[in-house]
Amino acid sequence: MAGALDRLNLEMRREGLAALVALSPENVAYAIGYMVPSHPHNRARRTITVLTADGRSALIVVSVEAELARQQSRVKDVRSYNQFTEKPIDVLADVLREFKVAAGPIGMEMDFLPALDYLRLREHFPTLELRPSRELYLRARLVKSSDEIASLRRIAEISDRAEAVAWREVRAGMTEKQLAAIITNTVLEEGGDGLRLLVGAGERSGIVNPKPTDRGLGMDDVIRVEVLANLNNYQSNVTRTGVLGQSTTEQRRIWAVLMEARSLALERLRPGAVVRDLWTIYAAHMRKHGLEPSISFLGHGIGLSGHEEPYITSDKDLVLEPGIVLTYEPFYMMPGRMGFHIEDMFLVTEQGYENLTTVTTNETLIEVAAR
Amino acid sequence: MAGALDRLNLEMRREGLAALVALSPENVAYAIGYMVPSHPHNRARRTITVLTADGRSALIVVSVEAELARQQSRVKDVRSYNQFTEKPIDVLADVLREFKVAAGPIGMEMDFLPALDYLRLREHFPTLELRPSRELYLRARLVKSSDEIASLRRIAEISDRAEAVAWREVRAGMTEKQLAAIITNTVLEEGGDGLRLLVGAGERSGIVNPKPTDRGLGMDDVIRVEVLANLNNYQSNVTRTGVLGQSTTEQRRIWAVLMEARSLALERLRPGAVVRDLWTIYAAHMRKHGLEPSISFLGHGIGLSGHEEPYITSDKDLVLEPGIVLTYEPFYMMPGRMGFHIEDMFLVTEQGYENLTTVTTNETLIEVAAR
Repeated sequence: MAGALDRLNLEMRREGLAALVALSPENVAYAIGYMVPSHPHNRARRTITVLTADGRSALIVVSVEAELARQQSRVKDVRSYNQFTEKPIDVLADVLREFKVAAGPIGMEMDFLPALDYLRLREHFPTLELRPSRELYLRARLVKSSDEIASLRRIAEISDRAEAVAWREVRAGMTEKQLAAIITNTVLEEGGDGLRLLVGAGERSGIVNPKPTDRGLGMDDVIRVEVLANLNNYQSNVTRTGVLGQSTTEQRRIWAVLMEARSLALERLRPGAVVRDLWTIYAAHMRKHGLEPSISFLGHGIGLSGHEEPYITSDKDLVLEPGIVLTYEPFYMMPGRMGFHIEDMFLVTEQGYENLTTVTTNETLIEVAAR
Repeated sequence: MAGALDRLNLEMRREGLAALVALSPENVAYAIGYMVPSHPHNRARRTITVLTADGRSALIVVSVEAELARQQSRVKDVRSYNQFTEKPIDVLADVLREFKVAAGPIGMEMDFLPALDYLRLREHFPTLELRPSRELYLRARLVKSSDEIASLRRIAEISDRAEAVAWREVRAGMTEKQLAAIITNTVLEEGGDGLRLLVGAGERSGIVNPKPTDRGLGMDDVIRVEVLANLNNYQSNVTRTGVLGQSTTEQRRIWAVLMEARSLALERLRPGAVVRDLWTIYAAHMRKHGLEPSISFLGHGIGLSGHEEPYITSDKDLVLEPGIVLTYEPFYMMPGRMGFHIEDMFLVTEQGYENLTTVTTNETLIEVAAR
């Protein structure tokens, strides 16, 4: 991930910003090279980076995280605050003054900065220009470095190996939660840092995000297994769908349409492609066969966030470049009956793309023989 | 959890609010009785509840979550939006108008509402009084219902069982991650919904929040295992500390002081106690023996959030009541060398308290025989 600070600096200068402030777990992690452990779990413990156009940088963390931050952070100037007696936003104001960037403009995560902190910052700097930095960060993080690709490649493979184990071990009588436990075990044994899982069986396969329950798996159930794991804070997203026993003609027909639509969109996956066109070709094929896509995107970028740009959807004119990592997830839900979903991760290369999830294949619906 | 809407309604009337708006995963979950799956993971998918003093309610969710919301939500009026073409905050504005509460005052999660949404809401309602609702929610959620206590009791026990397995299975040569995998497996097998873990061995036991790494466990290492699991969105937090092999005199002395300080603070744990006094007696005993507490609280409330009120710290005058669930976590870090930490969960009862984590005990430092 060497180069993150350079990429952010470049974007900052391009927009004429004096400094860039981040508060979200993923954007702070992008700058400092690791994730402060309590950052995603405790929002009272604000974690903030300040980067200036002239190359200064500081990290503001709660005092209990300062020791680890001094060891791990790429940003070496670590300021800490007491969670109960100090306001981190006041520390931020001090840093902006000290770095002589309080005249602005400042790139600010206005889609994350809480309103209360915003109003406090306004007390310090009534006229400071705060420019929303969401697009800037998404642009900086869009093309992955070789280190980032290595983490994504590894966690994609681990997640796909877990799918292989899941489909080898699954059987009638097991519960959704028991299947989830097998997958969890595999991801951790293979070296993943953590994960969450969506497992939906029978009518629950028709729920968009089915958290595993004690529902038992029965013969003829459609089963949908989605793995969302992480390594070095980089995320994976891999999904497979199968049937316990024999699939029906209706199920095979739906799956074939999904896979044809995916193939057409994969043929266009290369540098220079406009993401809107990928969506259009996918959605058109689905609709031609009477299937309305159940979600309004074909896939999404993936990196420090599970969902990031490029979302492959109808209103995005982003042009693909080598080094972008994204998912394709053809998706068709029949609420109350069943659902169909396959998700793979692809790296855009100079020549076209590389599939990062080739351990298992789901070209046809998986059929699990009775055992 | 029956009664959450009643508790919120009571607090709303007490503060003279026309309505109460929530946006955070825990406060939305408290109102609707389940957690929208993508809510904690994708902040582009804002999830919002509106409750009015005269008893109306609505839930605003991204369209892909609407199906599940209609099945599971206690709030039955579900409004959905398209993530790419609509602004959820505009839907909120429409609901406030429709419910005739746009004259305010509105209780608002100002510590969560993003600045961008705040400014958009100001365009709709330039003079509407938005009153920060953090304290209101913490008060409403402070005393747990019998359903909430049942979930907390169960996940506390499951987490403690996982500690028992961890300390039975741990041995030299294993890595922190391998130990974490054993614990994960146990929590899921016992029926927990998910978890994260902190495992620190040797000098890494002296880091406040040590995410498990590939570091191998060696003889004489201090090992700290913290389990943070969840069931029905209710959280646990259980920590044990031990040594591979024999503990040293220094280690036993530190542990004894921690446990004496804890005992003194447990003697005071009952309805009517002021949390500040619990901290004071704990900190005074630590300091008398030359140990400065490494974190500025003895423990914290636990429920839908891993950390919530009451934080047991020097500036809190909150008075305990039956039905409060909190942790005690005596904590002493020696950065670069080792760290000591025990954390249990307690329910405040009419008579005093009940320890929810009695599967394992850590009255003395755990010593793991070579094997």
